[in-house]
Amino acid sequence: MAFRVDNLQYSNWSRPIFQQMRDGGLDVVHATIAYHENFREMVFNIEKWNILFDDHSDLIMRAGTFADFGKAKKSGRTAIVFGTQTPAPIEDDVGLVAILHTLGVRFMQLTYNNQSLLATGCYEKIDSGITRMGRQVISEMNRVGIAIDMSHSSDRSTLEAIELSTRPIAITHANPSFWMPARRNKSIEILKSLAAHGGMFGFSLYPHHLKNGSCCTLDEFCTMIARTAELIGEEYLGIGSDLCQNQPDTVVKWMRNGRWTKDIDYGEGSKDNAGFPNQPTWFKDNRDFANLEIGLNKVGFSKRGVDRILGENWMRFYHQSFSSSAKQENGLVGGGR
Amino acid sequence: MAFRVDNLQYSNWSRPIFQQMRDGGLDVVHATIAYHENFREMVFNIEKWNILFDDHSDLIMRAGTFADFGKAKKSGRTAIVFGTQTPAPIEDDVGLVAILHTLGVRFMQLTYNNQSLLATGCYEKIDSGITRMGRQVISEMNRVGIAIDMSHSSDRSTLEAIELSTRPIAITHANPSFWMPARRNKSIEILKSLAAHGGMFGFSLYPHHLKNGSCCTLDEFCTMIARTAELIGEEYLGIGSDLCQNQPDTVVKWMRNGRWTKDIDYGEGSKDNAGFPNQPTWFKDNRDFANLEIGLNKVGFSKRGVDRILGENWMRFYHQSFSSSAKQENGLVGGGR
Repeated sequence: MAFRVDNLQYSNWSRPIFQQMRDGGLDVVHATIAYHENFREMVFNIEKWNILFDDHSDLIMRAGTFADFGKAKKSGRTAIVFGTQTPAPIEDDVGLVAILHTLGVRFMQLTYNNQSLLATGCYEKIDSGITRMGRQVISEMNRVGIAIDMSHSSDRSTLEAIELSTRPIAITHANPSFWMPARRNKSIEILKSLAAHGGMFGFSLYPHHLKNGSCCTLDEFCTMIARTAELIGEEYLGIGSDLCQNQPDTVVKWMRNGRWTKDIDYGEGSKDNAGFPNQPTWFKDNRDFANLEIGLNKVGFSKRGVDRILGENWMRFYHQSFSSSAKQENGLVGGGR
Repeated sequence: MAFRVDNLQYSNWSRPIFQQMRDGGLDVVHATIAYHENFREMVFNIEKWNILFDDHSDLIMRAGTFADFGKAKKSGRTAIVFGTQTPAPIEDDVGLVAILHTLGVRFMQLTYNNQSLLATGCYEKIDSGITRMGRQVISEMNRVGIAIDMSHSSDRSTLEAIELSTRPIAITHANPSFWMPARRNKSIEILKSLAAHGGMFGFSLYPHHLKNGSCCTLDEFCTMIARTAELIGEEYLGIGSDLCQNQPDTVVKWMRNGRWTKDIDYGEGSKDNAGFPNQPTWFKDNRDFANLEIGLNKVGFSKRGVDRILGENWMRFYHQSFSSSAKQENGLVGGGR
């Protein structure tokens, strides 16, 4: 059986959600563990994950290596891969990149909407590209095996990251701007460069990234995927649903505003539509991966194409991304049961 | 070949010292990575170790599991095991115990001379035993696989820790007080209880723990070991040399004073003898493990007894101590080279 992967979620994690992952046949979920949290705060989030892993060890398993994914699938559990959506957890310290790897982090965004120490976010007016520290961090992420994610970055920074990285990079959750011209969606130029360098594009189910928002149809979504496959090839496409199940509006406020503004930033929302938008009826939770399969079949993808887009392409990317090329691996084996 | 282990050092690490470990045939060294450092500061020390592991990958290897020790020995390198001498790195957060395990920490002292959040140190007037949080932390250390070290603790706290812990505990670096009545040395009652629970006692070469200090002879030291073996059995004895090579006096000041006092505390030293004392001539660095072998032979230990005391007993203890009994291991495999 092919692997089924959702390469971005940030839900209010609970047993019902983990059960939905199992019911939806999800073998791997990339879970965001931090937005604007500093290092210590991110570690506290991992402490909470440690409790989740213990309490729900029949449904989920922490995963840091390619081998872990096979182990999880074999034991009927969903592998959870950690990622951060901003580089705030590494603070101003490139040495923390290796520490994050040891702690299980496998994706990190270089920016989140705003200028960071590393690159420019997609909401800034001027995109100055990858910074001096950004180059150091890209090189260190390449070395230890943390994948670079440019979903919330602006164009120049994204194109430079693709070029500078010695490993393929990812845009884990966004859609093409030719289909829906949201600020977070990506140009054809970026899609092409990403694929030309072996990178991965994860389609988002977050309504603000969808044509017609919450009213977008399954057919519209899958037709857009088919169009993107024609442009750059189906082997570079996957899903990064951006599911944020059961999160209170305070969480979307934290994502958008962190501690950086005294005004309220509504991100892709607006004052009258500030909270989490409603998911489309055909993609409300992990169980709806079955609908994506139906939709992709309907627009003409082969069985192999569907398997690739719903997981196998991400598996190839994981294989390329997570092994360390450091002289000594920074991750330690924890136990010897 | 039997394993050679030094179960406590805190040197100013450098390539010459790692080379001395190899020349002395040391297969494993337990290295202190923090005293009064808080969590973030301890992580910074690990960042510095990450650079050491990369720069000297031909001489040393980070180790977190029993299997790692065999791998290090086979590849002609010294395995480095992390430990902290105070519980300051876990701050007031029991969840950090599992995080420390993930980061490679395998020993933690519950106290260092003073009262801690967990237990009472050997310099306090009143020993109130293991605290409420101390019981939680012991249980969590047992669960994830971090060994409890009571070298700098007072009597009641030590005896209670031995009883409360479901795994054997260690006194990694001290000597018996019947031989040298230093405040840091341990009573026969403690030695007997430690051994009765399968624990380990590491003999210290730090001059303030030695009879006649820096002038102590090899024969005096080894005769004391023989006497201790008669009392509690040679299978519970090892070496925890407390070597602090090339450290400036500012470091001994940090060990003793941290940030807790405005007066100067001289610990086992005194105002006139505040710095690091001179090592005895027969134990100046890692190469002098050969002298210990000669001395132990001379006082009548069998070849097997010598092998046990110089490493094999610690290996047994590691095997009992470092595996996780958590439902999911908190340590992650780092790479998949």
